[in-house]
Amino acid sequence: MASGIVTLLTDFGTADPFVGVMKGVILGRFSSAQIVDLAHGVSAQDVAEGAFWLERSYGWFSPGTVHVAVVDPGVGSLRRPLLVTTSRHFFVAPDNGLLSYIYQDETNVEVRQIENKQYRLDSEGTTFDGRDLFAPAAAWLTRGQQPGSYGKLIQDYVKLPLAEPTWQGGILAGTIVYVDRFGNLISNLTPFHVQDVQGRTRRPAVSIRIGGMTIDGLVRSYSEGDPSAPRALINSNGQVEVFIKEGSAAGVLNVSRGGTITLA
Amino acid sequence: MASGIVTLLTDFGTADPFVGVMKGVILGRFSSAQIVDLAHGVSAQDVAEGAFWLERSYGWFSPGTVHVAVVDPGVGSLRRPLLVTTSRHFFVAPDNGLLSYIYQDETNVEVRQIENKQYRLDSEGTTFDGRDLFAPAAAWLTRGQQPGSYGKLIQDYVKLPLAEPTWQGGILAGTIVYVDRFGNLISNLTPFHVQDVQGRTRRPAVSIRIGGMTIDGLVRSYSEGDPSAPRALINSNGQVEVFIKEGSAAGVLNVSRGGTITLA
Amino acid sequence: MASGIVTLLTDFGTADPFVGVMKGVILGRFSSAQIVDLAHGVSAQDVAEGAFWLERSYGWFSPGTVHVAVVDPGVGSLRRPLLVTTSRHFFVAPDNGLLSYIYQDETNVEVRQIENKQYRLDSEGTTFDGRDLFAPAAAWLTRGQQPGSYGKLIQDYVKLPLAEPTWQGGILAGTIVYVDRFGNLISNLTPFHVQDVQGRTRRPAVSIRIGGMTIDGLVRSYSEGDPSAPRALINSNGQVEVFIKEGSAAGVLNVSRGGTITLA
Repeated sequence: MASGIVTLLTDFGTADPFVGVMKGVILGRFSSAQIVDLAHGVSAQDVAEGAFWLERSYGWFSPGTVHVAVVDPGVGSLRRPLLVTTSRHFFVAPDNGLLSYIYQDETNVEVRQIENKQYRLDSEGTTFDGRDLFAPAAAWLTRGQQPGSYGKLIQDYVKLPLAEPTWQGGILAGTIVYVDRFGNLISNLTPFHVQDVQGRTRRPAVSIRIGGMTIDGLVRSYSEGDPSAPRALINSNGQVEVFIKEGSAAGVLNVSRGGTITLA
Repeated sequence: MASGIVTLLTDFGTADPFVGVMKGVILGRFSSAQIVDLAHGVSAQDVAEGAFWLERSYGWFSPGTVHVAVVDPGVGSLRRPLLVTTSRHFFVAPDNGLLSYIYQDETNVEVRQIENKQYRLDSEGTTFDGRDLFAPAAAWLTRGQQPGSYGKLIQDYVKLPLAEPTWQGGILAGTIVYVDRFGNLISNLTPFHVQDVQGRTRRPAVSIRIGGMTIDGLVRSYSEGDPSAPRALINSNGQVEVFIKEGSAAGVLNVSRGGTITLA
Repeated sequence: MASGIVTLLTDFGTADPFVGVMKGVILGRFSSAQIVDLAHGVSAQDVAEGAFWLERSYGWFSPGTVHVAVVDPGVGSLRRPLLVTTSRHFFVAPDNGLLSYIYQDETNVEVRQIENKQYRLDSEGTTFDGRDLFAPAAAWLTRGQQPGSYGKLIQDYVKLPLAEPTWQGGILAGTIVYVDRFGNLISNLTPFHVQDVQGRTRRPAVSIRIGGMTIDGLVRSYSEGDPSAPRALINSNGQVEVFIKEGSAAGVLNVSRGGTITLA
């Protein structure tokens, strides 16, 4: 059952009214929808970054939330629009891998191609499916239309290769997947990876290498940091994160998204 | 009848809480208002850009929506505050041309000067009419107050000269009116202009010149683009738009807002 | 009594979904909450700037609004989370001075340490108390939980030294506390200070010095400005503000936040 909440994640930015227009279309079909912006600052056309942020956020919303994700370099092509239902949530997005983590993390995943023309606007353009297709599809779903009425189940939907840490000799190499506003470096390494390395090395503290520097062990919170040297911790999203107290780790270490971080 | 939806379009940005304060004032007068941000990234004091975005967006909202637009270089002067009603929508804005497209596009346009002091805050300042005048005027309207109670009808409201393409010999010259986040160049040329040129030249495909390059004909969607050369299409707002697949047309062509684009 | 409105003020920015996740947590506990963004562009970890903006904005919201403010360089340390009630409003924030102006301006101030674990999420991380602690605390309050159930009253909460103008001989020296999007320079000088100087100098017009230039007297609105020289006025927040008509005072005067402005 839809909860009435609709989230929006796009790469449209908020300087101009593209996102506002999507909200107008949704409210025009279901005036009591509660619309929440997840984020609109995904790097332009960066499907992998959009997928990452969706995975980090959707689980904090009530069951029955409809999540609309539009990072869509293939807008106007034959790439299919999707409605995905799981045990707990609904997702509306282009079939380009944006939902890759959802397929991996959720249960009872059903993927449908949106074919029913009743759920899209009768407009001629090909450049703004956020407005013409994804927003109305989400609105009707939130209003109570059944997923089965949208189109047929498909199996051959697109999955991105998800960047996973790899073993290189006795060293586990991960990747910086995001640099936040404070210059913190967020990796794809988790507590599971840390334990794995500890098990192999039989040492209680891991050794972290990033940007030519070595960090010995993890601290428990930012407050245990130091303005003169980087530290690492497990952040509240369950990721190894490198930070400098009162400073920017990205700036000091000269590391950006895509950079390497290793555990040993 | 007001629908309960209020949209906001300003040049205030969202780094500081000016927009948030306007929302507080609206909710304080009508707590069940649904407030939607159209955009707050209009270039500072750029009335023409605000008018352009309002025209591109308001029509996607339900009839009865109250649209508040505040790009207001004359705040504190004698410029008049306006309440405009049309067959379908309400608009609250300063009388500086921000509603020029509305006057042109809508039917049953009635323009009133907001004179009734009951609909404004009793504050002394002159620098924030968004908070003191436009937000409360919109709130009371959304709550059901009659437009006639706001003030007298006027006829001499300000209209901007709207930039229209012009014929120069056998060539139709338009203008780039916006560069979006992806570097796409959006013009004031429409399918009507394309057909007009085709009729005169008796050739099926138009020839587009911009930034020293020539683009032959229109494609149907971004997916028919090419990373090595610009293409043009009619976008979902009915405008000729120049793009480069997986790139920035603005960057490659070195064209910005106000630049010239011609059809022949 | 809580009004159902929750405001959010943070330094998280809106490029990524940290703010969106806080909204998901709030709506998951009280689905009819009306959530309003005050601003998320507070400079990273700048508690004083956050305190300034909160003070300028909260009063425009209905009594019973719950204001959540998270500018929190000490997240994860032993700094206490607070619930503050006053005659009119509720505030949820870290105990780092972010509420300093509230303590000064409001009546019947009661400050409680949030201790009741029922009002926080059961998560392990230490880096995102906005999601794990402040958002759920606000949601339960908005839903009707009594402040007394959150924790014990405390008296030793943190107060920032609030920057007040100082007399230096016969000259009153204030500070630029904010530069807005238009380049206007907003000071901590008020009409009270202007009157004080006028009383001492026995001249009707004050003389303002800033960035090496002198401005004689105040104008009443931006429309009395001049593109060729800076002017000053009392803005709608009751602050002396320096502006240049159709220009940027910050750029022309080469003054930024923290700069000095004097009255004589």
